Amino acid sequence: MSQPQTQIAILLFEDFDVMDVGGPYEVLRWLPNSKVTFVATKRGPIKSEGGGVALVAEAAISEVPNPDVVIVPGGAGELQARDNPEIIKWLQQAQAAGKWTVSVCTGALLLGAAGLLRGKKATTYWMAIDELAKFGATAVQSRYVFDGKLVTSAGVSAGIDMAIALAAQLRSAELAQAIQLGIEYDPKPPFDTGSPARAPAAMVKQLREMSRFKQSA
Amino acid sequence: MSQPQTQIAILLFEDFDVMDVGGPYEVLRWLPNSKVTFVATKRGPIKSEGGGVALVAEAAISEVPNPDVVIVPGGAGELQARDNPEIIKWLQQAQAAGKWTVSVCTGALLLGAAGLLRGKKATTYWMAIDELAKFGATAVQSRYVFDGKLVTSAGVSAGIDMAIALAAQLRSAELAQAIQLGIEYDPKPPFDTGSPARAPAAMVKQLREMSRFKQSA
Repeated sequence: MSQPQTQIAILLFEDFDVMDVGGPYEVLRWLPNSKVTFVATKRGPIKSEGGGVALVAEAAISEVPNPDVVIVPGGAGELQARDNPEIIKWLQQAQAAGKWTVSVCTGALLLGAAGLLRGKKATTYWMAIDELAKFGATAVQSRYVFDGKLVTSAGVSAGIDMAIALAAQLRSAELAQAIQLGIEYDPKPPFDTGSPARAPAAMVKQLREMSRFKQSA
Repeated sequence: MSQPQTQIAILLFEDFDVMDVGGPYEVLRWLPNSKVTFVATKRGPIKSEGGGVALVAEAAISEVPNPDVVIVPGGAGELQARDNPEIIKWLQQAQAAGKWTVSVCTGALLLGAAGLLRGKKATTYWMAIDELAKFGATAVQSRYVFDGKLVTSAGVSAGIDMAIALAAQLRSAELAQAIQLGIEYDPKPPFDTGSPARAPAAMVKQLREMSRFKQSA
């Protein structure tokens, strides 16, 4: 009852991916005695990848120096964010002081640029999985990977699975199960093409060629 | 190649649910030759349910009178939105002129209040399923239901499944499959409690009692 409030900060940067943040937000906002805050280098609206959505950062990262949980999305803007020393320093400090450092999709690469993947097992968006080695991580193909206080997720929608597992760690399995029921997360994908292991090879190749991750293996 | 652009409008109102809009947005933004626009009675930031997120409406509904696709989320604010004559009139006009009228979660009840469910098969959030009959609809327990130009989805996360199926209707199954791969939608829920049919009965009861949908059956 007197548990200290859990501070969860979700990082935004220009060209973040909407579902990368929306999935974990929707799950973690149901945790009792916790607060989820969207943060960016400055307060105010931040445009998502594709430009269709602007989400408002309620606080500057300088105002939230020591959250318990940091969640880093992916999206095209992850690449530019790697070059922002204020973001990199904030991630390093937050990781040192916090309980969980979390990424969704290519957010793992931003954590890598901050040096937070060295010697760790990690995962990321399927197209980017070969990039992990450059940051000293051991790639694992999984929906999400817990290694110490580092939690990394596969692409986009994997943030939902990860966040439910994280909720179980932050509170209890029973609460996480109730949240899963609350968001009616009983997925029935219309097709079975969500994994590159089962999608048609030509489709996998085409998507990779259209992306910033050319065939790298 | 000269296909007219598909205009997709996602309605926002105070206390909308974030994943209800984030799921379909993330899927449908990948459709070629289409534009997804967040709309509300007025332009500007709109607070989501729980207050943690403000999403910016890029256009007023009066500026987007005839979208091809209208998507209506749920969330606590759906109840207040039913009393807004401007929203009700816009939904009726958009339904009459458009190709698809779509809801996620309790957004179906707002469509019902606009008279758009009469004589239709429909679904909604599991807690609200008994409400559908009040609006003249036949309730179907399914992730999503297509009936004519009406598309309704179950709760929150079901909007992802629905939007992939809708993408197949709007363009092609192959494109929808590629989008599913693009968002790595290969769900692996940590638990099997996402449906009230399989969650523990006590959990189902507790969530219902905490909600605005008391035991109604």
